[in-house]
Amino acid sequence: MDRLITVEELEAATNSLLENGKKVGADSWQQRVKNQTPHCGFGEAGTCCRICSMGPCRITPKAPRGICGCDVHGIVGRNYLKFTAGGAAAHSDHGREIMHVLHQTSADGNYQVKDPEKLIRIAKEWNIETEGKDIYELAHEVAVAGLMEYGKPFGYQNFLNRAPEHTQKLWEEAGLRPEAIDREVSRSLHMTHMGCSSMPEALIHQALRVGLSDGWGGSMMGTEFSDVLFGTPKPVDTTANIGVMEKDMVNIIVHGHDPSLSEMIVHYANDPEMIALAKSVGAKGINIAGVCCTANEVAMRHGIPMAGNFLSQENVVLTGACEAIVVDVQCIFPALGPLSKCFHTKFVTTSPIARIPDSEFVQFSAETAGENAKAIVKMAVENFVNRKTELVNIPDQKTNARVGYSVEAIVKVLDGVANSQVDTYGTTKPLLECVTSGVLRGAVAMVGCNNPKIRPDYAHIELMKKLIANDIIIIVSGCSAQAAAKAGLLDPVVAKEYCGAGLKRVCELANIPPVLHMGSCVDISRMLILASELSKDSGIPIAQLPVVGCAPEWMSEKAVSIGNYVVATGLDTFLGVDPYVRGSSEICEWLTGETGIKKWVEANFTVETDIEKLGDKMIECIESKRAALGI
Amino acid sequence: MDRLITVEELEAATNSLLENGKKVGADSWQQRVKNQTPHCGFGEAGTCCRICSMGPCRITPKAPRGICGCDVHGIVGRNYLKFTAGGAAAHSDHGREIMHVLHQTSADGNYQVKDPEKLIRIAKEWNIETEGKDIYELAHEVAVAGLMEYGKPFGYQNFLNRAPEHTQKLWEEAGLRPEAIDREVSRSLHMTHMGCSSMPEALIHQALRVGLSDGWGGSMMGTEFSDVLFGTPKPVDTTANIGVMEKDMVNIIVHGHDPSLSEMIVHYANDPEMIALAKSVGAKGINIAGVCCTANEVAMRHGIPMAGNFLSQENVVLTGACEAIVVDVQCIFPALGPLSKCFHTKFVTTSPIARIPDSEFVQFSAETAGENAKAIVKMAVENFVNRKTELVNIPDQKTNARVGYSVEAIVKVLDGVANSQVDTYGTTKPLLECVTSGVLRGAVAMVGCNNPKIRPDYAHIELMKKLIANDIIIIVSGCSAQAAAKAGLLDPVVAKEYCGAGLKRVCELANIPPVLHMGSCVDISRMLILASELSKDSGIPIAQLPVVGCAPEWMSEKAVSIGNYVVATGLDTFLGVDPYVRGSSEICEWLTGETGIKKWVEANFTVETDIEKLGDKMIECIESKRAALGI
Repeated sequence: MDRLITVEELEAATNSLLENGKKVGADSWQQRVKNQTPHCGFGEAGTCCRICSMGPCRITPKAPRGICGCDVHGIVGRNYLKFTAGGAAAHSDHGREIMHVLHQTSADGNYQVKDPEKLIRIAKEWNIETEGKDIYELAHEVAVAGLMEYGKPFGYQNFLNRAPEHTQKLWEEAGLRPEAIDREVSRSLHMTHMGCSSMPEALIHQALRVGLSDGWGGSMMGTEFSDVLFGTPKPVDTTANIGVMEKDMVNIIVHGHDPSLSEMIVHYANDPEMIALAKSVGAKGINIAGVCCTANEVAMRHGIPMAGNFLSQENVVLTGACEAIVVDVQCIFPALGPLSKCFHTKFVTTSPIARIPDSEFVQFSAETAGENAKAIVKMAVENFVNRKTELVNIPDQKTNARVGYSVEAIVKVLDGVANSQVDTYGTTKPLLECVTSGVLRGAVAMVGCNNPKIRPDYAHIELMKKLIANDIIIIVSGCSAQAAAKAGLLDPVVAKEYCGAGLKRVCELANIPPVLHMGSCVDISRMLILASELSKDSGIPIAQLPVVGCAPEWMSEKAVSIGNYVVATGLDTFLGVDPYVRGSSEICEWLTGETGIKKWVEANFTVETDIEKLGDKMIECIESKRAALGI
Repeated sequence: MDRLITVEELEAATNSLLENGKKVGADSWQQRVKNQTPHCGFGEAGTCCRICSMGPCRITPKAPRGICGCDVHGIVGRNYLKFTAGGAAAHSDHGREIMHVLHQTSADGNYQVKDPEKLIRIAKEWNIETEGKDIYELAHEVAVAGLMEYGKPFGYQNFLNRAPEHTQKLWEEAGLRPEAIDREVSRSLHMTHMGCSSMPEALIHQALRVGLSDGWGGSMMGTEFSDVLFGTPKPVDTTANIGVMEKDMVNIIVHGHDPSLSEMIVHYANDPEMIALAKSVGAKGINIAGVCCTANEVAMRHGIPMAGNFLSQENVVLTGACEAIVVDVQCIFPALGPLSKCFHTKFVTTSPIARIPDSEFVQFSAETAGENAKAIVKMAVENFVNRKTELVNIPDQKTNARVGYSVEAIVKVLDGVANSQVDTYGTTKPLLECVTSGVLRGAVAMVGCNNPKIRPDYAHIELMKKLIANDIIIIVSGCSAQAAAKAGLLDPVVAKEYCGAGLKRVCELANIPPVLHMGSCVDISRMLILASELSKDSGIPIAQLPVVGCAPEWMSEKAVSIGNYVVATGLDTFLGVDPYVRGSSEICEWLTGETGIKKWVEANFTVETDIEKLGDKMIECIESKRAALGI
């Protein structure tokens, strides 16, 4: 395409797939949303409590307190903290799996250390002796140290030292430095147990702390050690949108989050034995494509195409051309079970963490990863003959996308445009200069899921278009990145035409798209590092930089954990969906007001469900930060 | 009293206190129950999901799946696992606090090692070298090892080795051995995150596992190291019920769970300086009484009277004679905030885990415990002058109670009745002989809270009366213990008259009440040890012993964690309140059927809200186990 794909075009493709589904009696999330509407008002406002079995209790003017006497602020606050803790636990557990894989690495095993330099760098950061050690000896030692970040009885998260001094001081003063990750999770559940905390301040404080244990702990380890294991991403060109599925090939969709699975699937899909097998059953080869964060992981390390994001996961099956959808953890629709039964698709679950009915379970583990992956690829290939050609419908919608902007890659891009006479290499200073001069007005980190409460992808795409038109550069991750990819916003050639003059110039000069793909949802930790580097390189506290975060279509507990750590890092954060808190004026003030978390971390949330206004508010916020800096 | 106090009499006392409350416009749980009735049917059935922000979703015949496609079994199962994890986290965190106190012990500090023998015994169990070490050096080393039980990256809980071999084998075969406690909590939240597990088997499996990490991990450490710090309980006589409050004394109520606080309060209430201060303000002295599990802790170690249990916590304030109610964590009504403001009572919160509005916060820590406790006692004493005598109403209801039956104490009692000619000392064999001969039919462990869904204390008291009349001996803990105490069932003189002939003879011979007080809710771990000893001494698997568990009025997440570990230890468990699962036939089958958890652990749940039937079912279960054993 030589222009962006519109949301209407995306929807037309989806509608054509839903027609396909109708032929086989498939259910769809679109239908289930209708069935589930309207939602419970108590639940949406956060004013229902079922923390103990005396209830559930619901707060109304006539029943202003639960049976225990908890008021609406305590109930909403506890629900918010529980929600955050669920997200922090899930997100961090992903990082833990990576650490266990690191602990299993060996020169001749399933997993190797692909970025030894990064491993050594982190070992030094953590005061682990690196000299005279075999890289795998070091890997195992660092893995144990990393695993201890989840459970050490004393001390704070190792990676907090990466934050700017100012940020570290704020955290220390506010008592926000997270201890062991799992302990913060357990502490959150203890505080929200019946008859523990009901004071908004305490609940919101712990929400930030458990969030920080995720962002600067579990998620950051997930990112950093995925890089160690699978390589630190560099810019790579790939394709995106449903049209990446291949009519004449065996299509294997990888979906979920943990690259330990998808890396292996990609490896065995390239195995000559498997390709020969595919040809023997009449296919032209094996095509791997990704959905959700797994798509980001393999796209940025191998250029694997990205078929779609969260609310496209049913679409890949609805094409009738999906031989297998292979999943690990998080954001997997249980609906894929019955849906895959309507087609020939094998729905393969692999993790004991995500057991889903109506799936084939192939337990994946670091020790047996190779044989597991091979068995799965074989299962998919052998399933090609079961495809019903009359049901195959792959909408012709495909974009180019440049992905893989790790912080290291961004710095390298900036080195490329630095002035060798005056600039230091290896910093973010060239970017800061663009911002200071006004060529760029600022940056927005766009992240998060889809949510049917927002017209799917509309908020992501339209906000990005609006922001780049206003010379605001965007970094993206997770399902937001894929929304961008599906529309063509990661295509350097196409997307620059939608930019303001300043940003367009930067894109041309640096040969980048205006929307920089930073990876999966754990890779929001890359954004924390980038913000920290910008702060260190400029000497300006993070909260004063013209940089904000935005999750316009978020839906998961993880997203709320992310929101908490992003805002606690000093980045004002804009949400398009209310996190079930609108029932409490006090909790809303704590999260969004001037007298709440802002006192501790210099940033807060804005919740605005009108997407047009959300964009305006972000631009306004960025411009007011510029004004305050006098730039 | 020379007879048991009836539930009607308990209610009459409460009603008189509620009249007192009306004079000052006090709210009450009784009124709030009316305001909150009827409860939400979706919540009660467990069929409402708000795990992500696409919802909430509610399952109905017309909407059989949530937006993600999760069915009712997945939704109910996830809610059940989340509920259990909340309880395991809270309950275990109590144990962690005890370990941190152990880590702070010193010969001349706030806390000492009072049972060095037990410390050495556990150190040996844990393969920690004890020779040549100062007891505090050892204490600190054991404390670190205990804290690592929460976060160690590899291996299973240390205390699992205490279970009978048969039980350990079942756990191993079913994959139920818990790893680090906090990891099990985080894993549970990961599994219940949007798009992870929705398969009932996996969810219930993890509920048992996280429950076991509490029962054989956090709770057991809470119990064992409380004994190390504060002494292993021995039988001691005390008094119970609201009449333990003293009209002419400064009344300080300790409420919550952690003995680290209450021990210190008790200590300073006996300080001559504080007693002199009390006299100087016109009081005859200082009276400490307990509510909830804290009451159990200080009753069994110091003979402190027990004012009441969970649903009596407002009563102590309503007497108008409570100078201070001092709380730490769990089961504290937020209602105490506004209620205390209706009287002169100081509501003192002490833990960062339980921050409650309208309270005075005195942060308690191991390092400053002495000065904190003294400040709190002083605050209470000085508050005596603010008492409004016209509002003082202490119902004249008081019983005698013998408390403090740790496993060690029970074995000592049994040694006292053993036949020195044929018996080995230090075993449970004399008790087993009583059971085998039929003098006793079996035993029931009665535990758990109050819940307005059950007429308060009625189920506890009436079930106990029924069971002892049927020659079934009872062990109690938590609020069930206090219900027994309030009625007089812990009075050896009174209660034996309500026993069948066999049990009465045993009580007289051993000089014990028919209801043995084993402590607080973490002390259910004592029951696990007792059941294990009975199994080892008899050679009979736990599930085949005529011993069952019962929580007829439970209400908290902790109680569900407890239920899971009790049943997973092989004890059939009877509940009087449904754990929000009735909406899923599959989850009900997993928990209560023949083809569910029973396959793994040889025991399951019975949920029966008709209390009379609940008693019949327990007796039937015990008799059928006897029949199966041929006794």
